[in-house]
Amino acid sequence: MNSVFHALGDATRRNMLRDLTGGERTVSQLAQPFAISLAAASKHIKVLENAGMIRREVRGRTHLCRLDPGPLASAHEWLSFYERFWSSRLDVLEQLLRAEDASKSKKPKSRKTAPKSKSRKGDE
Amino acid sequence: MNSVFHALGDATRRNMLRDLTGGERTVSQLAQPFAISLAAASKHIKVLENAGMIRREVRGRTHLCRLDPGPLASAHEWLSFYERFWSSRLDVLEQLLRAEDASKSKKPKSRKTAPKSKSRKGDE
Repeated sequence: MNSVFHALGDATRRNMLRDLTGGERTVSQLAQPFAISLAAASKHIKVLENAGMIRREVRGRTHLCRLDPGPLASAHEWLSFYERFWSSRLDVLEQLLRAEDASKSKKPKSRKTAPKSKSRKGDE
Repeated sequence: MNSVFHALGDATRRNMLRDLTGGERTVSQLAQPFAISLAAASKHIKVLENAGMIRREVRGRTHLCRLDPGPLASAHEWLSFYERFWSSRLDVLEQLLRAEDASKSKKPKSRKTAPKSKSRKGDE
């Protein structure tokens, strides 16, 4: 998991992964969108390869890279453990908004059908 | 996103986050489970703080840390983009297993009610 998160901690590498979602790429194709040398690109690819997110296939002189989503799935799974913390924060927010809505609709006693008449106004 | 993934790329920091899911912790409480100095623990906490995953509150002489799940939610969201790649691989696997099941159930013609009788056996 260290190598996976480490590999994801760089924008160039994250962009390379995004690029690979379009299909196989050669090393120079992966390097092309960035103002970096082929050597620098190769280093980034190596980091992604060591983390298991890129599979490399040598066909003659070309190295073809393709995405292996397995480690991304593992990282996603790891983060899912914390989901209850951010979703519970959203629950609290939702409750606050509902309470606010409820107190609003209590105040103007004559406006029971207000949302309907409002939507009619919008239809004009 | 760089700082978030970078912060997650270390087992000690990931364990500190896990620890904080139990509630607020002081710096020395966070350091305690690891065979590291207080200074080293402080560095790790600083990395998590800079990535926005820890909020620190100073009460007198104690620094109380608590989890902020926001950046974890963002990282989870970022990874979700790739979900279709691993779930499509699972779909392929599921299809393969179904096809295998189908070919198996075709062979022994007398075993049409096999799953039911099997579950009855398990009830004994």
